[in-house]
Amino acid sequence: MKHGSRMISSAILILILTWMTIPATLSAGDSGRRVAIALHGGAGTILKKNMTPEKENAYREKLTEALQAGYQVLLQGGSSLDAVQAAIVILEDSPLFNAGKGAVFTNAGTNELDASIMDGKTLNAGAVAAVKRVKNPIKLARTVMEKSWHVLLSGAGAETFAKEQGLELVDPKYFYTERRWQSLQRALEQEKKKRQMRKSEITPETQDDFKFGTVGVTALDQAGNLAAGTSTGGLTNKRFGRIGDSPIIGAGTYANNATCAVSGTGQGEYFIRLNIAHDISAMMEYKGLSVQDAAQQVIAKLTHLGGEGGVIAMDRHGNVAMPFNTAGMYRAYIDADGKPVVKIYREESH
Amino acid sequence: MKHGSRMISSAILILILTWMTIPATLSAGDSGRRVAIALHGGAGTILKKNMTPEKENAYREKLTEALQAGYQVLLQGGSSLDAVQAAIVILEDSPLFNAGKGAVFTNAGTNELDASIMDGKTLNAGAVAAVKRVKNPIKLARTVMEKSWHVLLSGAGAETFAKEQGLELVDPKYFYTERRWQSLQRALEQEKKKRQMRKSEITPETQDDFKFGTVGVTALDQAGNLAAGTSTGGLTNKRFGRIGDSPIIGAGTYANNATCAVSGTGQGEYFIRLNIAHDISAMMEYKGLSVQDAAQQVIAKLTHLGGEGGVIAMDRHGNVAMPFNTAGMYRAYIDADGKPVVKIYREESH
Repeated sequence: MKHGSRMISSAILILILTWMTIPATLSAGDSGRRVAIALHGGAGTILKKNMTPEKENAYREKLTEALQAGYQVLLQGGSSLDAVQAAIVILEDSPLFNAGKGAVFTNAGTNELDASIMDGKTLNAGAVAAVKRVKNPIKLARTVMEKSWHVLLSGAGAETFAKEQGLELVDPKYFYTERRWQSLQRALEQEKKKRQMRKSEITPETQDDFKFGTVGVTALDQAGNLAAGTSTGGLTNKRFGRIGDSPIIGAGTYANNATCAVSGTGQGEYFIRLNIAHDISAMMEYKGLSVQDAAQQVIAKLTHLGGEGGVIAMDRHGNVAMPFNTAGMYRAYIDADGKPVVKIYREESH
Repeated sequence: MKHGSRMISSAILILILTWMTIPATLSAGDSGRRVAIALHGGAGTILKKNMTPEKENAYREKLTEALQAGYQVLLQGGSSLDAVQAAIVILEDSPLFNAGKGAVFTNAGTNELDASIMDGKTLNAGAVAAVKRVKNPIKLARTVMEKSWHVLLSGAGAETFAKEQGLELVDPKYFYTERRWQSLQRALEQEKKKRQMRKSEITPETQDDFKFGTVGVTALDQAGNLAAGTSTGGLTNKRFGRIGDSPIIGAGTYANNATCAVSGTGQGEYFIRLNIAHDISAMMEYKGLSVQDAAQQVIAKLTHLGGEGGVIAMDRHGNVAMPFNTAGMYRAYIDADGKPVVKIYREESH
């Protein structure tokens, strides 16, 4: 019992240390109405000692570019949905993140992408799972939301819809990157060594590395509307048509003008079981918690259940919380003076 | 504005009329600990005038059989998960419901099945989407929960997992029923008449009839553990790999010993956007609402957003709420005296 409560105390301490409070990440748009944007590029075992300065710079530059793209949309009076999409497209097009171009490989050596987007004003949502030829899954998620009566489309059927709607399809080879291919090879070798393990038992250890490169964006526009979006390649070496939390509304993505916009990254199975994104919204709506307290509490639940990851959550005033229980999380937001702030490691939280 | 508030008043009135309060649907198990079970077989335009006595009897008998099967598990000290599975298997094996054997056809003339199950004690969950050859999708959902590290598997990959785990696979022809095939033909003809409609715009009107035959069960066992499960064939004439709420934890299914067990049926897209099942749990946990009030409030939200359907929700004391905003919902529960109560139409609510 004592050991347990010490563990819980440590967990709480870590959470407090990790918990980022950004009291006023707001900037004035042209109309004088405040806008805000925040994004993540995945949480996981991201340690400074494993980084080269070049690699770190590359990440910081791409996060800044995406943030600025979304921010410009907001400054020009564009919608939060457009800002979310603009920022995610840049992260999807970069090989640095596990989304779009940089998606990890499945056990079969393919890339299967998931994405979702939600409009806080209408509670409309769109999502796609396991698509293999759609260059920008976030655009397809948006199209599902706006051009179909559905929320979630999957697999080859989703690609048929993408084609009908004129979205850009690419040869699956487009998603080949040497780095991700090598990750799969290492995962397969690790697995070979564990042959005694039952084939269908996939544990986090079978993953090549414990970095999650899922990307996500939340935004508040001049009209006061919140939006959130998430895009991912899922898990390296995933099998059996596994779908994680990223395309699941309420798990990896949620937006509601009455409460907040959320995007998550981490061990998707835990995010689904805990309904992470919707739970933050529910705690704000029903318990009157701040976005910081609500986001912190769901990450405490995640820790308690044994899961790892983080979220970005933004309330309707543009306040942002970015708690995570991993070593690091690629994350960024626009500060009050319009200057982007980009962070990677835990020690930058303060 | 006046018209709007009158509409809302009417909606509230309908909800009050529809709202079923069952104060004590509890029975004593052999150990003296109380157990409870409730199920639904879909909500929709189910009107007495369209029913023959034979058809109605067939439904009542099958609902009773499923209920008794689950109830016997509970009386004998079995787990709520086993009770949920036992009842759903019977509904899946019947051609009467849109799940398993009686699944509706997709636009391509195939049957694509979804299911999920959740354990209120551990918050473990398992789900499958778009499987075509698994005889009992609820068994596969259970196996995903217990034998994999994942929550949601889809398509051919999920079937590979099913095969590895020794689940019963059937020829896709197994799911052929003349009634559902004719439903698809009518849907396709209706669609033909609406050729001016954009191909990818699927509206509820393109569905053959507005009956949802999704099945779901909630149970409370002698150990005080809640569980919930849901199984469906989705929408007649569905396309593009559409996935509804049934395999989505938090949307169509949720269970948490701290609050309740929920299974939903209706227009899945609305259930996903509102996180119906998790929202009931959240309102109980964070607002202290009773299961009746929480379930009623989510159906009010569903009505407000323009969606149709219903839920069964059971709290940890075995209290059951079964609100719906459609003409009818196939539903049943075991009463205090152990006698099954089976209802179909709205007017039976009272």
